[in-house]
Amino acid sequence: MSETRLWETIKREYVIDTPYLRIRKEKVRLPNGQILGDYHIQESRGWVAIFCKTLQGEVVLNWEYKHGIGRYVLELPAGGLELSETPVECAQRELLEETGYVAQSFEKIGTFVIDPSYVDGLMHFFYCKNARPEGKKKIDPREKIKNRLVSVPDLIALIRTGKIEVMGHVAAIYTVLDRKGLWEKKF
Amino acid sequence: MSETRLWETIKREYVIDTPYLRIRKEKVRLPNGQILGDYHIQESRGWVAIFCKTLQGEVVLNWEYKHGIGRYVLELPAGGLELSETPVECAQRELLEETGYVAQSFEKIGTFVIDPSYVDGLMHFFYCKNARPEGKKKIDPREKIKNRLVSVPDLIALIRTGKIEVMGHVAAIYTVLDRKGLWEKKF
Repeated sequence: MSETRLWETIKREYVIDTPYLRIRKEKVRLPNGQILGDYHIQESRGWVAIFCKTLQGEVVLNWEYKHGIGRYVLELPAGGLELSETPVECAQRELLEETGYVAQSFEKIGTFVIDPSYVDGLMHFFYCKNARPEGKKKIDPREKIKNRLVSVPDLIALIRTGKIEVMGHVAAIYTVLDRKGLWEKKF
Repeated sequence: MSETRLWETIKREYVIDTPYLRIRKEKVRLPNGQILGDYHIQESRGWVAIFCKTLQGEVVLNWEYKHGIGRYVLELPAGGLELSETPVECAQRELLEETGYVAQSFEKIGTFVIDPSYVDGLMHFFYCKNARPEGKKKIDPREKIKNRLVSVPDLIALIRTGKIEVMGHVAAIYTVLDRKGLWEKKF
């Protein structure tokens, strides 16, 4: 389909600029000529999530308090890209820091748009297997993570019962299960 | 697992407060006593997405420019909750406004956490079938949406090839396909 109707940015300024959050405000002209004075965009280097299977075939999950939603959530190991870091480097670092596991190779499975109206970054997700608990966890002081190992059928049950409920993680887990042939089409 | 390690909010103030974006800054005390001076949280009434099948069994998609990511994306009909609106009311309104379709009943399939570190809202997704193009689209002036009708196999192909790439929509589509028995477990 056509992609001709882009918006034109007339002016931009930063309204929040911290190490964890950077938001710019744009004045934009729509294709119909209308001007919007305060369109906010969150600038993001993006983040990664890792579907990591251990030597025993279990999947590594994190159980962690998150202050935006104000409660504990069950997720894949994940984290934001640091400056000058590639997605795969970020995946290796986050897996080690958050779980202590290391793996020989990280397979890139896909990339998602995080929030197309508001965020300019992408989410990248990786698959690794035969991971070993060789490293020592190095947790960010803002994070206190408990790890949990689950079988693939248990992982699917956690998704189906809403125990794994964070949007990007649900999307990544279903996609990995699909691409790795753990689901079958009916038709 | 235990849920004892919550953070304590000591102070809060609004740093952005517009009709489309509201962000508060909190001063918080972590369980280890550490103080964070500027933890930002986006306040959100949440949003909905609708997996809508027509009388012919096709799924209704939107093709729309989104200025956060700066390009066109293919998504389910979706939108943010208005003040005092329930999720199902929002789903009915958004489907009509964005596609002109109406359906007898909307089945709630699930709820996702949007971004647990940063956003306090939820995403709700609905399933409806036998929808008819009875209404007239009422597009927000900031939106210019083209609708596209696809078969379920084509929808799965769009997911698998990354043509549908927005995190929350991928999560909702896989979940609906799974709950509605369009996928089978191998094990």
